[in-house]
Amino acid sequence: MKKTLAHALAGALALSLAAAASAQVKPEDQIRFRQAGYSFMSWNMGKIKSNLEGTYNKDQVAAAANAIAGIANSGMGALYGPGTDKAIGNVKTRVKPEFFKEGDNVGKIAREFNAAANDLAKVAAGGDAAAVKTAFGKLGEACKACHDKYRMED
Amino acid sequence: MKKTLAHALAGALALSLAAAASAQVKPEDQIRFRQAGYSFMSWNMGKIKSNLEGTYNKDQVAAAANAIAGIANSGMGALYGPGTDKAIGNVKTRVKPEFFKEGDNVGKIAREFNAAANDLAKVAAGGDAAAVKTAFGKLGEACKACHDKYRMED
Repeated sequence: MKKTLAHALAGALALSLAAAASAQVKPEDQIRFRQAGYSFMSWNMGKIKSNLEGTYNKDQVAAAANAIAGIANSGMGALYGPGTDKAIGNVKTRVKPEFFKEGDNVGKIAREFNAAANDLAKVAAGGDAAAVKTAFGKLGEACKACHDKYRMED
Repeated sequence: MKKTLAHALAGALALSLAAAASAQVKPEDQIRFRQAGYSFMSWNMGKIKSNLEGTYNKDQVAAAANAIAGIANSGMGALYGPGTDKAIGNVKTRVKPEFFKEGDNVGKIAREFNAAANDLAKVAAGGDAAAVKTAFGKLGEACKACHDKYRMED
């Protein structure tokens, strides 16, 4: 119960940080920055996957999980400001219009994603590969929940 | 003294993680991922700068500093593997050839960058804006040390 509340608060915090930071960044840069964040997270997800499938390096997994959590907690909601719902010049986006209309559901998905990223970082610090595998799977599901609903196919 | 040693070890760790992870990622993706990392760090540097120049939000600064430190510690050296020293198709890079020939100096700069990023995260967690300003300035110098020497102008 305590844990659930902490996660909910972390999510709410991330969203409020997001709101505070959205004003200064141009829409096309918001798109670029959010894509950069997801891209860098995907590299680190790939490293964790490789470790789980091959030789497990605790330090590499912990570092990758910390990078993902750091990015997840940085208030990326601020990068979905007005005007970022479609391509701007040659800066394209795959986000679906529904993303901007379904705030409650997007918030829920974002909180679950943050919670899963924080759990993975915590578990990775401990170095138990089996526990990391479970936490990694949950984070993957949290990513997929948003991709399935709000990301256009290539 | 202890702190300096810890920083040196953190740098050495980052480089060894880097070596372990370089094999699996295609050169063009290495370039994309490293650019994503720097891009996302620059967004977070911008947020910290805005906070220092305007209203200071401790939570936003701490979150931004954690994102930067998480990325800095993720072993980005792995993203400078063979074949990533020049453009691959339309994936361009501004890294100078010297970067790949001056490993000792690059390693020194990387360790100083990591140390500065970790210091900023630590100081930001405390919430003392003046201390954050100092640590932020040092991190900016660490970024600049590499840009000045190893990054081509636009």
